[in-house]
Amino acid sequence: MAELTRRALVHDRHGPPEEVLELRSEPLPPPDAGEVLLEVEAAAINPADLGRINGSYGTLARLPAVAGLEGVGRVVAIGPGVGQLKPGNRVRVPGDRGAWCDRLVCSADDLLMVPESLPVEQAAMAFVNPPTAWRLLHDFVALQPGDWVVQNAGNSAVGQLVIQLARIKGWKSISLVRRPEAADALRAVGADVVLLDDDEAVAAVRDRTGKKPPRLALNSVGGPSAFRLTRMLAPEGCHVTFGGMARDPAPFPTRHLIFNDISLRGFWLTRWMQTASRTGIRELFTTLFPLIESGRLKVAVEAVYPLEDYRTALKRAFSPGRRGKVLFRPAARS
Amino acid sequence: MAELTRRALVHDRHGPPEEVLELRSEPLPPPDAGEVLLEVEAAAINPADLGRINGSYGTLARLPAVAGLEGVGRVVAIGPGVGQLKPGNRVRVPGDRGAWCDRLVCSADDLLMVPESLPVEQAAMAFVNPPTAWRLLHDFVALQPGDWVVQNAGNSAVGQLVIQLARIKGWKSISLVRRPEAADALRAVGADVVLLDDDEAVAAVRDRTGKKPPRLALNSVGGPSAFRLTRMLAPEGCHVTFGGMARDPAPFPTRHLIFNDISLRGFWLTRWMQTASRTGIRELFTTLFPLIESGRLKVAVEAVYPLEDYRTALKRAFSPGRRGKVLFRPAARS
Repeated sequence: MAELTRRALVHDRHGPPEEVLELRSEPLPPPDAGEVLLEVEAAAINPADLGRINGSYGTLARLPAVAGLEGVGRVVAIGPGVGQLKPGNRVRVPGDRGAWCDRLVCSADDLLMVPESLPVEQAAMAFVNPPTAWRLLHDFVALQPGDWVVQNAGNSAVGQLVIQLARIKGWKSISLVRRPEAADALRAVGADVVLLDDDEAVAAVRDRTGKKPPRLALNSVGGPSAFRLTRMLAPEGCHVTFGGMARDPAPFPTRHLIFNDISLRGFWLTRWMQTASRTGIRELFTTLFPLIESGRLKVAVEAVYPLEDYRTALKRAFSPGRRGKVLFRPAARS
Repeated sequence: MAELTRRALVHDRHGPPEEVLELRSEPLPPPDAGEVLLEVEAAAINPADLGRINGSYGTLARLPAVAGLEGVGRVVAIGPGVGQLKPGNRVRVPGDRGAWCDRLVCSADDLLMVPESLPVEQAAMAFVNPPTAWRLLHDFVALQPGDWVVQNAGNSAVGQLVIQLARIKGWKSISLVRRPEAADALRAVGADVVLLDDDEAVAAVRDRTGKKPPRLALNSVGGPSAFRLTRMLAPEGCHVTFGGMARDPAPFPTRHLIFNDISLRGFWLTRWMQTASRTGIRELFTTLFPLIESGRLKVAVEAVYPLEDYRTALKRAFSPGRRGKVLFRPAARS
């Protein structure tokens, strides 16, 4: 095999992406025994990427690192001894190797096969937000048909997926949003109730849910919004935080913990993946892929960029007011 | 039976105790069918009493109400049809009837018998703090021998009992205190480590516990102290709040919830008592009474007052710097 080069978004130190991230071309050795060469079809930009690059995340890659936790790729060559994969197979790009590049070599072990039937952009976004939304709705409270779930950041990718999954499973969702113009899009994907995320929301949720207040609250904002969610919960309800680390602190909801037996939990998909069995992980994706294929689970796309436009792409991904995810199409041939 | 009068600390509305509480003499009808007349031997003053009187507590008595959640009394007369009790029996004063009085009439059902062998003051304090300490140490984390527990307000009554129970059960305790002069008394009751409750405590706990950080943190302070406890916990550790509602708010420990899988829970003995079985409640006291009788569980007493000195008693009970509980001896004959 002729010597390859690859282009990748790399950082040598932790800091703001606009300061530390660089697009580099570098030689790529051919796949060794047990390895495969992947071309990255599409890669998503997630809030966790920001934390991985600036150093605030719970796990960090060894430096220098290729950024990008999530993407989908295609096997273009296999090393000696690789039996389970062949060129042309579509697979998940392993999150710890960095997906913001056009090519990479990685171990063939445990690569997750991805059906061809998934639209490429939805496939690239299938590995972080959909499993997060699924686990958030299943791992903390045994929701019954008709039960309410309340979430802030309803317009985020996880927020949209929570709305869609709740609809599929027969639960009702209340989504709090910061901008009123987000409401229509959420109703279009199946939101039961959309409210502005302000102090009036507590009474509004009480009115809408009556004698069956929400049993599960999903927080990725923090600050007063996180606190409001605790006030909306039924006794013995569970409040799960899965994002928003960098935002405003909120007061500790002491009273609700004591008198209403509310519990505050956290969810981190990385930990779930580390502790789940291989079978458990494959079962989860076996459940999710058909829902994504059918379009019942779908994340809105704001924009798609080639790697060289990464400054524009990142700025857009981390600006308020966007309506969907921003992706790279690293190996797309124009 | 001749007509009786009784003296009781009563409030007609909710507010600061010094404004709303009055010592009143009132006629007491004799025990009706299924009822008993009790003389209150001793009654404790607890933080929860303050919340019940000022209206901030999770459950409130119908007004006018006799204050006082906890006390021990003696049956002095029984009404028709009472078979299970006789004059002279020592029993718990039911918390919902008000214990800050010299006599009361209450239902004979479910009265908890209290052994004569318990010192009267320890008996009066046996029903709130000892079961709270026991449940805190048993209901949230399955502690193993040698595991560490960390608590703030180490010098509170529950704090002292947690130290004593941890020692009995083979767990190690770290107690954070606000005043250094409290440390010796806590070491005397079995504290393994006593530290000042300040920012340096986080590193000090890390040093002391090494590779086995505390799995359980008990918070009755709130504010920055509550937040520090979350930082001391091992991954998957549990932080339980059981008091401190009125204190400073603390920031929401988002990062620790997400990355360390810390959970924040609450405990309220009233709820436990409401949901536990009669058998469960009796088993708990059957376990606790011998420990209290032997002196292995013991709460320090700061002062004992007759009912008429209630203003002084309450002031002392709710002032910082005291070394133990303040009690009433309502029916004591001088």
